[in-house]
Amino acid sequence: MKVAIFGIGLIGGSVAKDLRAANFATEFLGVGRTQKSNDLALELGLVDKIVSKDDAIAQADLIILTVPVNLLIDELLYVLDRVEPHQIITDMGSTKGHIIDAIKNHPNRKQYVASHPMAGTENSGPSAAISNLFNDKVCIICDKENSNLDAVELIEKMYQTLGMRIKYMDAHQHDMHAAYISHISHISSFVLAATVLEKEKDEEAILEMAAGGFESTVRLAKSSPEMWAPIFHQNKNYLLEVMDTYIEKMYHFRNLINKNKNEELKQFMKDANEIRKILK
Amino acid sequence: MKVAIFGIGLIGGSVAKDLRAANFATEFLGVGRTQKSNDLALELGLVDKIVSKDDAIAQADLIILTVPVNLLIDELLYVLDRVEPHQIITDMGSTKGHIIDAIKNHPNRKQYVASHPMAGTENSGPSAAISNLFNDKVCIICDKENSNLDAVELIEKMYQTLGMRIKYMDAHQHDMHAAYISHISHISSFVLAATVLEKEKDEEAILEMAAGGFESTVRLAKSSPEMWAPIFHQNKNYLLEVMDTYIEKMYHFRNLINKNKNEELKQFMKDANEIRKILK
Repeated sequence: MKVAIFGIGLIGGSVAKDLRAANFATEFLGVGRTQKSNDLALELGLVDKIVSKDDAIAQADLIILTVPVNLLIDELLYVLDRVEPHQIITDMGSTKGHIIDAIKNHPNRKQYVASHPMAGTENSGPSAAISNLFNDKVCIICDKENSNLDAVELIEKMYQTLGMRIKYMDAHQHDMHAAYISHISHISSFVLAATVLEKEKDEEAILEMAAGGFESTVRLAKSSPEMWAPIFHQNKNYLLEVMDTYIEKMYHFRNLINKNKNEELKQFMKDANEIRKILK
Repeated sequence: MKVAIFGIGLIGGSVAKDLRAANFATEFLGVGRTQKSNDLALELGLVDKIVSKDDAIAQADLIILTVPVNLLIDELLYVLDRVEPHQIITDMGSTKGHIIDAIKNHPNRKQYVASHPMAGTENSGPSAAISNLFNDKVCIICDKENSNLDAVELIEKMYQTLGMRIKYMDAHQHDMHAAYISHISHISSFVLAATVLEKEKDEEAILEMAAGGFESTVRLAKSSPEMWAPIFHQNKNYLLEVMDTYIEKMYHFRNLINKNKNEELKQFMKDANEIRKILK
């Protein structure tokens, strides 16, 4: 089997590393978006060769799209328009509703499996690719009833090879959960970084005080704007909802402090502590 | 040397563990606030014996106060009123301005050293005490010019024994930096937990999506309300300032998403990415 990976950055590169190590395929073809990332992907041994989009489509049995979500629909349509019936396609984007809606009437729809491996780091590009990024994490496959059985089975096998636990979800439900849990976490972290950088002019103090919880809470603010801006854009409706709740609660917290409502402040935190029960 | 620790929870208990392991003193006396924590501290071997406040003051050469910051001023005044000239006192509270202002004219002021070891976990109580909690972290000593030299030297020696790097700061500057960096991090995390718990009713989804950044960003929301409510109360002025900046920026971020201002959204995140340069 030949595998082609479109977009050889943190996600695509890490997938390539683990699938190669597991001998999942005989050849790995890379289709990067820039000369620089192509060169780097080859140099790092992430793929066997760099090919054009059309050559990748002509040769690969499995096509994996890991480009940013704003490019995914065009890329997927381009691929679906050209594939033969035996070829299977998946993407690894963080939003799923838009893409599934966009291709729902395509004649080759059933060769495509929508998936979202829930793993990442705050780094990006081919040099950010690492082994075992996906191991023991959750992968969500969306609307599997709209894909061919053999396509779903191959994608499941691929994610199992990466060590992932597979869950199934409706695409729009997926986007809602992602907004309410993962995307709002990234936003709160970006806003925390922006706030601290504006208020705190003493960089040495930031470094000295970072261990007091700031470092871990702000980690996601190092994430790639190129990757996240399109995700936030595509998931706008659910995001605005959860951001409004966040702003309202932050404002309430502020007022409890301002009005010295100590017991209510403690109760707010005790309620927030309930997250312990879910996470462990 | 005999050491007495008032408050044998996460901080006091962890101090006791490391100082005992390093043979920093011949005897460790514990003064807990409840029968339960006293029993637990003895059972866990954190201290050699539990004594009353007055017995601790009568016997100890070094008195370490690790009670919550709302109890610190009363506790410190009680101790300062009763100590002999050779005895040395420190506290480990997360706010410093209030306490230093409250005791500034006390005749025994110079026997007290204000300090804040910047270390912790989201757990609390004697059973949360762990070894090496302080190692390689920063400890801030405030207004050292108002303490006796031998007192400062003993406290420095103690923190060096715990493996800490010592920095010096004015007490009010300390509180400002703590609000702008550490305390706002805790608040953003509490608010994130409260938001997710309100919007996301599917607990399984929370668990499945936690690895996508939520788990690390929300970690501080597990922190103790009993410890943090008084800190937020005492640091109210600086906190309201930084919370207002945070709310303003979150609202701005929301509007950039709402109005599809993609380039400005990316720029906001690129600016936030600058935190990378400071933290590593």
